[in-house]
Amino acid sequence: MSSQHDHDARERDVSGDVGSTDAERSAREWWAGIVEPGDSTAHALVSTLGASRALDLVSAGATAAEIAEALLATTGAGAGEITNLVDLISTGLQRWEGRTGSAHNDSARRAADRCGARFLIPGDAEWPASIDDLGEHAPLGLWVRGQLDVLPDPSVAIVGSRNSTGYGEHVTVEIASGLAARGIGIVSGAAYGIDGHAHRAALASRGATVALLAGGVDRPYPRGHSELIERIAADGAVVSEVPCGATPTKWRFLQRNRLISALASATVVVEAGWRSGSLNTAAHAATLGRPLAAVPGPVTSPTSAGCHRLLREHDAICVTTADEVAELAGVGGDAELLQPLRSATETRVLDAMSSRRPRTIDDIAARSGLDHDSVRACLGELDVLGDARHTPNGWIMS
Amino acid sequence: MSSQHDHDARERDVSGDVGSTDAERSAREWWAGIVEPGDSTAHALVSTLGASRALDLVSAGATAAEIAEALLATTGAGAGEITNLVDLISTGLQRWEGRTGSAHNDSARRAADRCGARFLIPGDAEWPASIDDLGEHAPLGLWVRGQLDVLPDPSVAIVGSRNSTGYGEHVTVEIASGLAARGIGIVSGAAYGIDGHAHRAALASRGATVALLAGGVDRPYPRGHSELIERIAADGAVVSEVPCGATPTKWRFLQRNRLISALASATVVVEAGWRSGSLNTAAHAATLGRPLAAVPGPVTSPTSAGCHRLLREHDAICVTTADEVAELAGVGGDAELLQPLRSATETRVLDAMSSRRPRTIDDIAARSGLDHDSVRACLGELDVLGDARHTPNGWIMS
Repeated sequence: MSSQHDHDARERDVSGDVGSTDAERSAREWWAGIVEPGDSTAHALVSTLGASRALDLVSAGATAAEIAEALLATTGAGAGEITNLVDLISTGLQRWEGRTGSAHNDSARRAADRCGARFLIPGDAEWPASIDDLGEHAPLGLWVRGQLDVLPDPSVAIVGSRNSTGYGEHVTVEIASGLAARGIGIVSGAAYGIDGHAHRAALASRGATVALLAGGVDRPYPRGHSELIERIAADGAVVSEVPCGATPTKWRFLQRNRLISALASATVVVEAGWRSGSLNTAAHAATLGRPLAAVPGPVTSPTSAGCHRLLREHDAICVTTADEVAELAGVGGDAELLQPLRSATETRVLDAMSSRRPRTIDDIAARSGLDHDSVRACLGELDVLGDARHTPNGWIMS
Repeated sequence: MSSQHDHDARERDVSGDVGSTDAERSAREWWAGIVEPGDSTAHALVSTLGASRALDLVSAGATAAEIAEALLATTGAGAGEITNLVDLISTGLQRWEGRTGSAHNDSARRAADRCGARFLIPGDAEWPASIDDLGEHAPLGLWVRGQLDVLPDPSVAIVGSRNSTGYGEHVTVEIASGLAARGIGIVSGAAYGIDGHAHRAALASRGATVALLAGGVDRPYPRGHSELIERIAADGAVVSEVPCGATPTKWRFLQRNRLISALASATVVVEAGWRSGSLNTAAHAATLGRPLAAVPGPVTSPTSAGCHRLLREHDAICVTTADEVAELAGVGGDAELLQPLRSATETRVLDAMSSRRPRTIDDIAARSGLDHDSVRACLGELDVLGDARHTPNGWIMS
């Protein structure tokens, strides 16, 4: 799923137009360390000017107008847009101001070193190309513990309620282990409930799994999943777009959800309440145009209400087995071939026959309301199929 | 749902072009008594020539070619079609032959009198106009015990597995009684399981309910539902297109299903196995362009597999409550208005606030990664909503 955006980013890295790779990497890390996820102004500056030049301008105290002019000079866009652009950058500068002065980045760097987290940027071999489909909402970089490139293509996001039921957990394990057995990766959010069961089933089946966190990768959240998150980091990868030390806030959870849906080829919601956070992940999948599926459950179960809402209002695909989910991710399942149904004539002829008493063609014709010739032809077919046979006294079902 | 077809039929009855109403009624009864459901050749003869003239021709031993010429003379169609038409009529004559000679119709008439069944034809005040949407597959007439015009518009078909579970029965009763309470009629097939629960719930809620049978209305089927079928005939109507005395064959069940879906404004499948007969009713509803819905259930329940198949493969609408079903039938439910979600800024500002410790706007701006002005504006809104308040030492969540 390599996008044009990704292609352009690689081009610039190779040509060196936007600075050397090392300077670029550390400048991106600086930017990723001070902005909140989804800061499209920062994204525009970094992707247009390069992280390094954008950082130089901001550090040197350039005004919003000066930065806007630098942007327009690079993109070659007309001056007509400049007023709006200056406003956006001016607000951006105010947002970043509260953080640029702090020792924020140094302490995040030290925390990353302590937990063995690496900072990936677009163009890195390990960078997941599917993330670039987020366009201007793509992260500036990703902090990773473990190996992100263990995740195969395709992968599926399995998400759902923290307050899962035995039913939802059972179905999660069935689907996740079935997908893992087919070589499909499992992406989730390491939360209690459905997420945790999806990761555990993938690990148990020796499948690849990746957890996206809302806080820093050095801060396992929820705390009760610290051990699970360690195992995911050891066997797969634990990933975040916010720096080490960052706390998981509601905003960061919502933004983290976009990374889950972007990293996976398809998203499945197994159990979700009417207002579950996993519906947000589902919305991101739909926005990205990636297949979105929901597992149905009893209508009497509040933890399936969100799934039914997705089926009803958001055109989610109804899935009930690992096979059906694999199909969404483009992996052919063992689709059952439907038995051909009986033709109308066959049904009527068989209705008119007995398995004990032989009947003549005329008798069968009268009973079925069909004409003689159709009955004779049909009996020939049923004979071949082994459903009828001829006796000296007439035809009988077999 | 009055169709052009219905309109034409009334026109002809009134004008007397196709014979007097009494002769037409008894000829239609004769035709309906000898053909199998869905005989489109008989339908063409009866609707074009009138039942009475078609009967006269067949009784007089007219050849297929003579009948075809009479048809073409009436429709004014060109002679180019005649070969095919002669073949169709010739096969029809053979089909009907086995039955025209019998005492079939007389005994059916006597059985109808004994059980109080009346024979309705298109144009009768009690004739359900929605049935005419079946076009050339419409029944020639309907035998009715009870009053068919008690059925309100809209009505909903509730169908499903004979081997229902406690879950399916519970949901059926909830939906059927909810619809009855809203004045919506319940149409079903009087079978064990879902059908029976739908009828019973409608009766218990003093709602209108109609049962369509695959055999004659004098032969309650299944026998274990004889008493239920009597109650439906007493309070609503029991209806069939095959004459009294006719046994319910597989073919007649399949054809009966088209009447269920045509009589109702929408069809809901509550529980159904992977190859359930109710999927046939669902297919008829889809063919007619009527709303088709399915109730989801546990993916671990084989009796919900057919419902999930409808959701997955046949674009059925997922319904979980009587309200949602009423909406399908065009009756506005008490649709819950979704609470507006918090804006991104509100989420981020609240993330950065404490409910115990007052914080300055600058502090909140730095913590949230937002600019000073956005935070100030947002705090104003949160203050109005009662979610934040100003103290001498700064802002706190409330």
